[in-house]
Amino acid sequence: MKRIGEFTVEFENKPAIISSGCIVGKKESEGPLKNDFDEFKTDSLFGQDTFEQAESFLQKRAFEIALNKAGLQNENIDLIFAGDLLNQCIGSSFGLKENNIPFVGLYGACSTMALSLIMASMSVSSGFAKTAAAVTSSHFCSAERQYRFPLEYGGQRTPNSQWTVTGSGAAIIGTAQNKPKIHRVCVGKIIDLDIKDANNMGAAMAPAAYDTIKNFLKDTETSPSDYDAIFTGDLGLVGSRLLHQLLLRDGIDIVPYHNDCGLMIFDRNSQDVHAGGSGCGCCASVLCGHILKRVESRELKRILVCATGALLSPTSSLQGQAIPAIAHIVEICI
Amino acid sequence: MKRIGEFTVEFENKPAIISSGCIVGKKESEGPLKNDFDEFKTDSLFGQDTFEQAESFLQKRAFEIALNKAGLQNENIDLIFAGDLLNQCIGSSFGLKENNIPFVGLYGACSTMALSLIMASMSVSSGFAKTAAAVTSSHFCSAERQYRFPLEYGGQRTPNSQWTVTGSGAAIIGTAQNKPKIHRVCVGKIIDLDIKDANNMGAAMAPAAYDTIKNFLKDTETSPSDYDAIFTGDLGLVGSRLLHQLLLRDGIDIVPYHNDCGLMIFDRNSQDVHAGGSGCGCCASVLCGHILKRVESRELKRILVCATGALLSPTSSLQGQAIPAIAHIVEICI
Repeated sequence: MKRIGEFTVEFENKPAIISSGCIVGKKESEGPLKNDFDEFKTDSLFGQDTFEQAESFLQKRAFEIALNKAGLQNENIDLIFAGDLLNQCIGSSFGLKENNIPFVGLYGACSTMALSLIMASMSVSSGFAKTAAAVTSSHFCSAERQYRFPLEYGGQRTPNSQWTVTGSGAAIIGTAQNKPKIHRVCVGKIIDLDIKDANNMGAAMAPAAYDTIKNFLKDTETSPSDYDAIFTGDLGLVGSRLLHQLLLRDGIDIVPYHNDCGLMIFDRNSQDVHAGGSGCGCCASVLCGHILKRVESRELKRILVCATGALLSPTSSLQGQAIPAIAHIVEICI
Repeated sequence: MKRIGEFTVEFENKPAIISSGCIVGKKESEGPLKNDFDEFKTDSLFGQDTFEQAESFLQKRAFEIALNKAGLQNENIDLIFAGDLLNQCIGSSFGLKENNIPFVGLYGACSTMALSLIMASMSVSSGFAKTAAAVTSSHFCSAERQYRFPLEYGGQRTPNSQWTVTGSGAAIIGTAQNKPKIHRVCVGKIIDLDIKDANNMGAAMAPAAYDTIKNFLKDTETSPSDYDAIFTGDLGLVGSRLLHQLLLRDGIDIVPYHNDCGLMIFDRNSQDVHAGGSGCGCCASVLCGHILKRVESRELKRILVCATGALLSPTSSLQGQAIPAIAHIVEICI
């Protein structure tokens, strides 16, 4: 692999996305992308005892689906990169502990799908692993009660707030012909513009997306029109508009090419999700369900996926701290 | 790099530990390794407003010390790998947000020093980064109140419990002559033998250390006597004894070569730490303070560092779940 410009890395030996799998909850299965998900369940506990265990189940199942599609077994995977939003990332550790695969825990908040793809691609391209997996998840109920209020409280949500997606996505990275390839990637820096409203993640994360997209386009000497589409992870309506404005100040217009997984997964008019979907599982299920299918069919031949994450905790917010954010880019081609 | 056996990777292009830095708290500065740490403070808030911000300060400072020793600036570091025990890893994200360096958040609990070294080594050896950093921390006060009880509660601790180290360690990985090199590494699997006592982390983590050490020795066709020393991260007294027993059942005797950072950092007779030290900062400060100095002086020429982590959360424990654990190995030579 070789470094391009200041922040971007190009894989000369391009890792392939051999397969992907995803599973979502009831609300996601009623949204505009309902036909793209591999599985859904209407039971928000997914047959488990607690919402945290339900989230672990999501990761376990998404990974299983991806493995099955690739015709692989656990022993064919050298390394799993996984993370989630729960304290101590128990969605991942409990979800994937029975697979008996060397495990790298990541914490990138909602940027985890891109981060895990970057790390898995680095490991495969370098020979550290022959085949690796990238997995992440979120669950509305486990996130809501951990980050905000008890579910039973039923508090009113602010207009800027987003709805945490219940879902998981998993991708298997390895060597294959005629499969989507990871071409270039860019690991983001932590950006903190002193946004303190924990109900407005879009505003906190947009500057991070701006920074990484700007750096990537500069490093690669490309412009938005070089890509069939540019997807962000979960900026929602507020964050997407801010991102457009920030980039336009620099003369970069991504609007004709941009869509946000948080705006794609729900119908904002009928599904009461306010500014859109969010959570690690948002980018994960939309990428592994909807987007990669369109790359495989060659409807999209060159895309950017820029997943954003807000690196706050309830404790940091209660202590009056601002919300640091991060965004990572993966360029996928076929 | 090339894969050896089932789980181990050997770096042909061996990354060097260019420099390291560490900072600890008062109790650690009064222990047997007091002369090995770069800095300590007697104020447990380290001049900050909260214990969480104090932990962020530890990471910021340890990284700064390592940078200074290497004569490098922030812009010379392509990638930081960091994580900690706090919910959403805010020790790392808040501690390193001002450095303006591409950031990969990890969650490996107390195994993070080894995990971040492995990831940084992979990135440098593959050319993904020219120079990378591995950073982690823990703080007694932030950990105690997050995982156990309010500090003011002053509850009695069980004999098996360990004392979370207040400290941070940072290592800069790159290319250099005459510096310790990362030779072989092994990413561990999640091991869960159904230990449910959250006051006995040693027992939960020992089987993970056993699994990774056994796999590494098998893959490399080496035995404990091939190493000048084998260090575990924070098994403490209970976990160390269990590890010895588990390995002895397979005819592997590490006792003459083994020491545990959790047993080295405190004097168990006089410092009231029960089964020893623990936390991400335990392995980090002992490695970056004490051990690497002895490698640089050639007192130790070939060592294994096996950092262990317990991947539980207070929520998973309250829900009656067992404690999954993990251990990663880094072989360091000079």
